[in-house]
Amino acid sequence: MMLGAGLVSGQVLAAEREFDMTIEEVTLKVAPNLDYKVFGFNAQVPGPLIHVEEGDDLIINVMNNTSLAHTIHWHGIRQKGSWQNDGVPGVTQKPIEAGESFTYRFKAERIGSLWYHCHVNVNEHVGIRGMWGPMIVDPKKPLPIEERVTKDVIMMMSTWESSAKDKYGEGGTPMDVADYFSVNGKSFPLTQPLRIEKGDVVRIRFYGAGGATHAMHSHGHDMLVTHKDGLPLDNPYYADTVMVGPGERYDVIIEADNPGRFIFHDHVDTHVTAGGKFPGGPITVIEYDGIEMEDWYVWKD
Amino acid sequence: MMLGAGLVSGQVLAAEREFDMTIEEVTLKVAPNLDYKVFGFNAQVPGPLIHVEEGDDLIINVMNNTSLAHTIHWHGIRQKGSWQNDGVPGVTQKPIEAGESFTYRFKAERIGSLWYHCHVNVNEHVGIRGMWGPMIVDPKKPLPIEERVTKDVIMMMSTWESSAKDKYGEGGTPMDVADYFSVNGKSFPLTQPLRIEKGDVVRIRFYGAGGATHAMHSHGHDMLVTHKDGLPLDNPYYADTVMVGPGERYDVIIEADNPGRFIFHDHVDTHVTAGGKFPGGPITVIEYDGIEMEDWYVWKD
Amino acid sequence: MMLGAGLVSGQVLAAEREFDMTIEEVTLKVAPNLDYKVFGFNAQVPGPLIHVEEGDDLIINVMNNTSLAHTIHWHGIRQKGSWQNDGVPGVTQKPIEAGESFTYRFKAERIGSLWYHCHVNVNEHVGIRGMWGPMIVDPKKPLPIEERVTKDVIMMMSTWESSAKDKYGEGGTPMDVADYFSVNGKSFPLTQPLRIEKGDVVRIRFYGAGGATHAMHSHGHDMLVTHKDGLPLDNPYYADTVMVGPGERYDVIIEADNPGRFIFHDHVDTHVTAGGKFPGGPITVIEYDGIEMEDWYVWKD
Repeated sequence: MMLGAGLVSGQVLAAEREFDMTIEEVTLKVAPNLDYKVFGFNAQVPGPLIHVEEGDDLIINVMNNTSLAHTIHWHGIRQKGSWQNDGVPGVTQKPIEAGESFTYRFKAERIGSLWYHCHVNVNEHVGIRGMWGPMIVDPKKPLPIEERVTKDVIMMMSTWESSAKDKYGEGGTPMDVADYFSVNGKSFPLTQPLRIEKGDVVRIRFYGAGGATHAMHSHGHDMLVTHKDGLPLDNPYYADTVMVGPGERYDVIIEADNPGRFIFHDHVDTHVTAGGKFPGGPITVIEYDGIEMEDWYVWKD
Repeated sequence: MMLGAGLVSGQVLAAEREFDMTIEEVTLKVAPNLDYKVFGFNAQVPGPLIHVEEGDDLIINVMNNTSLAHTIHWHGIRQKGSWQNDGVPGVTQKPIEAGESFTYRFKAERIGSLWYHCHVNVNEHVGIRGMWGPMIVDPKKPLPIEERVTKDVIMMMSTWESSAKDKYGEGGTPMDVADYFSVNGKSFPLTQPLRIEKGDVVRIRFYGAGGATHAMHSHGHDMLVTHKDGLPLDNPYYADTVMVGPGERYDVIIEADNPGRFIFHDHVDTHVTAGGKFPGGPITVIEYDGIEMEDWYVWKD
Repeated sequence: MMLGAGLVSGQVLAAEREFDMTIEEVTLKVAPNLDYKVFGFNAQVPGPLIHVEEGDDLIINVMNNTSLAHTIHWHGIRQKGSWQNDGVPGVTQKPIEAGESFTYRFKAERIGSLWYHCHVNVNEHVGIRGMWGPMIVDPKKPLPIEERVTKDVIMMMSTWESSAKDKYGEGGTPMDVADYFSVNGKSFPLTQPLRIEKGDVVRIRFYGAGGATHAMHSHGHDMLVTHKDGLPLDNPYYADTVMVGPGERYDVIIEADNPGRFIFHDHVDTHVTAGGKFPGGPITVIEYDGIEMEDWYVWKD
């Protein structure tokens, strides 16, 4: 679940941050019985976390090592004065063809839970080939509640079509059936537990990375919804189930005040299957430190 | 529509409340032409209303009289200090096998529109077998608007697959097609009218009990959305159409200031069919007292 | 995109406004390869904009020139004291049969982004036959931000089933597959560009006119969500992706401070296809005045 160490310490001056990124044809194990051909940023799904400070100047060198054309759109970045770096084929640039490279340059002026994804054939590349990753722009002035965060979690939900697992260039149409569902590219039981301890202040950043809407439900804890699409809400609200649609992000805070073991899952009933069988999909378990693991616990090992 | 008499009068001390509940294999008439095998809590769908006060201690004895395993999850209850009562197989308990029983004990510390549902094979048992019911925890300090409520209505929306109506253990996968839709287990015209009179303050508690998102639309009245998942919003807002996703709850208030006859329905167009034919699904009619019923009124009788 | 000249100047007294409207069987070019039989209000999709002032008295004479029965529901209008004009067959009136007419009379007391649509066989007529149009009731006291608006845009999203394109009376069931998606009845590239200039204050009124939920995403600009279902929110919030469900409306404000060329689209991945091929669907481009059009720009001409 990408549990991080919390916020990087602040820095006053804008920095120039340069990243190299490749796009690779790799196979992702989405579920125990589902090996899936994806286009992976740096050969992984989700792509690598790009974590910068508000105001940083970014230079991102992209090398397309796949057999098809791509671009990268930086979802949420405003591209003020830099629209040619928005990554949309036919609108802001020509596609990055197979074997070619492209350099994106822009300022991270927009804060929060952002992400990046391909903008070529998005129904396939974004919908079912894993071409997305998180980008987090830490604000210069975080909210008080953000300063209390002790655990950072990213959950990017998406769907998969087993019928298209071996065939680049196919799938992702309204006629195809999504039959696997995932958080961070993994279907339960391949997902990671969310290990916390009492007193933790856990921030979860939900991303609707694919084409479905997910109903993320925390057991044992209400979630304080603090940000929508990376921007703070004037009136945070509590929920135990947060709908996360395609392209959306919600930041939520969980106060870890309830030691135990609690499932955390997508409440769309069909989403907790894998190849039509329960259980699977976007399911994890909040495991508090110190709770005994009985032999019937599904994730005992 | 489960029109109730309003709030039970307050009580100062926490009470111990004990309930016996069975799970039965019964047939539910969802639509005039659809008899459906369900697992009914106390042989009914929705299951019986559990209506308690904030702070009550609950003891719920569950007897599984069906041929398959189940558990009960109390959705919204935080299970503080009682996580083993959260009702999730493989995480908090072993399933309640056929013919076995289990007792849940927990405190109703979390207020509002809660619910309960099975957590075994949820894609089938919750998605298409009716294993859910409402649980309402009245707050010790209700909001002023809650104290004005004169009519209480519960609407739990879900979907059905006619292909699985006779076959326990099947259905509820992404490959199956939901072709019937309901409020409180009934498809129009089997739904109940919502009978009110001028001056009523009507609270509707919407529940996304199944796997679909429903767009609940009131004719003739705006709805003030006051609670999300049982908890009060700092900033209630008006809507004429409220999206209710899987697992979510919204409490809304309607001021009955507009005598007449108004349809009230799910605005997802395919949801107002039954077996592919219009009209059906989550449709009811707000009937004000004293409005004449013409011979062409669909619910004249 | 129905770019208008902004708000009509206010008028103090309520006016009686009379409109004649017909319903016609016409063919709509939804996509370059999709000619679709629709029921068009005044032979068009969306139907004509009805733009009135708060408090106006409306008289709308409807002539049904099609071969099937219809009604018109005025979605959002409260019909206070005029429920027989709510346009619901079997509840408020008998259907308007082929060749017959009906006159609706009501007061536009409810402000904001309203709409109208048929209420007969809604799964087909509203879902896939284009029987909807916008109705805007300007408030007597607009918000300060509304007074700053320089460009008005309406976006009504819906879906289409190519299998039903030639057959009135069919389609729109859960068994049918929507394989074309549109804004204002058009799939990209038949959609219109959104031409603005720096300094514009653009209001977009999103409508969920069909049966799907759309994730409207603006590149290069955050959107301030100011109204839900036509009514002002106490706490507007920013978003780059707005979920718009069936029947819902959201008003958003975009400050045009970022000259360039930015795509604007539905983020539901399958929705940006047409007949299974990318790109199509609810896609447009924000074109700032003065930006050069390179030869690779998809909408150069």
